[in-house]
Amino acid sequence: MTHPKIKFNKKPIIKTIAVLVAMEAEAAPLVSLLGLKPCPKSHRHAPLPSVVRSGVLLENDDGGTKNVQHQQQKKKKKKRCEVVVATCGADSTHGVDSVGTVNAALCAYEILKTHEPDVLINAGTAGGFREKGAAIGDVFLVDEVKYHDRRIPIPTFTKYGVGAIRTAETPNMRKTLKDLKRGVCSTGNSLDATEVDREMMSRNDASVKEMEAAAVAKVCEMFDVPFVCVKAITDIVDGPHAAEKEFLENLAMAGKRLQETVPKVLEFMRGKTVTDL
Amino acid sequence: MTHPKIKFNKKPIIKTIAVLVAMEAEAAPLVSLLGLKPCPKSHRHAPLPSVVRSGVLLENDDGGTKNVQHQQQKKKKKKRCEVVVATCGADSTHGVDSVGTVNAALCAYEILKTHEPDVLINAGTAGGFREKGAAIGDVFLVDEVKYHDRRIPIPTFTKYGVGAIRTAETPNMRKTLKDLKRGVCSTGNSLDATEVDREMMSRNDASVKEMEAAAVAKVCEMFDVPFVCVKAITDIVDGPHAAEKEFLENLAMAGKRLQETVPKVLEFMRGKTVTDL
Repeated sequence: MTHPKIKFNKKPIIKTIAVLVAMEAEAAPLVSLLGLKPCPKSHRHAPLPSVVRSGVLLENDDGGTKNVQHQQQKKKKKKRCEVVVATCGADSTHGVDSVGTVNAALCAYEILKTHEPDVLINAGTAGGFREKGAAIGDVFLVDEVKYHDRRIPIPTFTKYGVGAIRTAETPNMRKTLKDLKRGVCSTGNSLDATEVDREMMSRNDASVKEMEAAAVAKVCEMFDVPFVCVKAITDIVDGPHAAEKEFLENLAMAGKRLQETVPKVLEFMRGKTVTDL
Repeated sequence: MTHPKIKFNKKPIIKTIAVLVAMEAEAAPLVSLLGLKPCPKSHRHAPLPSVVRSGVLLENDDGGTKNVQHQQQKKKKKKRCEVVVATCGADSTHGVDSVGTVNAALCAYEILKTHEPDVLINAGTAGGFREKGAAIGDVFLVDEVKYHDRRIPIPTFTKYGVGAIRTAETPNMRKTLKDLKRGVCSTGNSLDATEVDREMMSRNDASVKEMEAAAVAKVCEMFDVPFVCVKAITDIVDGPHAAEKEFLENLAMAGKRLQETVPKVLEFMRGKTVTDL
């Protein structure tokens, strides 16, 4: 005999989802597709250069007759979900996107304070490891994030330096979005990788390498907000080509892959609780 | 004939000075000497693990007779200066001080939002380069900060990666506090240094190496708040000993050196405008 599960601490329905994307080129196709507008709370991010856009996630199923209109509206209200997409914005001195851990953490901090999302998704591009099965154009739903460039060889500080954090448990989303690969994402502030970086990434069991996720995850952990990490592969870390060349060649394609994937993730989350993911 | 100088945009007297220190052991002697208490605005830093203490900088000269009492009080009021000392606090998972750029930037961000200081000082320990004249126990008043671990080999991003920022101009303070050495401070998230790090630090013309300053400087730049950087040397980067060994041996001594030096910096600033520094 099976007993019905009694849910203590039942989490509320997800009402607000924040998506943090470091670069404009990574975010633009997604923002365009979702029809997001400048967020009325953008000013609270000042003086960060963050660019914040928001909107209500539209229903896919807009059918229904007059007879069921009330029921439909009730259902729609229940499934109403706000999406906030923030990019790190342009560096005031150098004019380029504020990539890397520091600006991503600051942007995440202000997103979490201002918008109080139920979930934060860090979406972006990444390098992939061929030996872990990654190919250009793949999209990963990351299991865990770690740093590869915070080496602090004092016994009590070593694990802090690596800063491993598990992403939110999403077993049902994985079953639905079967194309998403899984693995560890390793974060560092450089686009390239030295021999020491490669050794650290190998120790981290990294499938993908990028420049923000571990920092964003830490800020989410502080706020006790579930962290989801979606990364599209632009370049192969253990391949013959320089990261910067492949990255630039494939940035637009990876932006499109995020445009295809992130809405599916958002649609899956809408109307669910965090524990349903 | 000399014309009196007309000061446009006359800056106000410095009323609040923030001091950001990454580690408790670096800050403790200073907090103790200044007699600071838990800051009433500490709660605004939540959920950051920052530890924030504040107090009013006491006058050195408390003399004066009854006849000049009113004048003295007026002078004292003019020179009243609040000091806020914030440390990055303990990591919730690993229990150690939250060292490195991400946590320092988050702490700086909340300090600048909450306390609105007129100046922010990043004080702490650092490695020093012998070939640039640094010795253990020296204290540097830094001229410029740069990163050595943000390599982004895309032409438009390279300078952003290095992230060079000049500290506040303090020619008068330098004349008064003659013992303070000067040079470039190079920031990275590792306590050790790889060959590539050393090459980058050499290109940065680094005299000292530490783990926070360039990130804190960037946040100050965003808020348009003058940034001052004071670093006490615990270890020699281009010497024969491992950084971590010398660092641990000399951490308490460097904390004492900061205890001696930072109050002199605060005392020099009190009652002055930023342009008087």
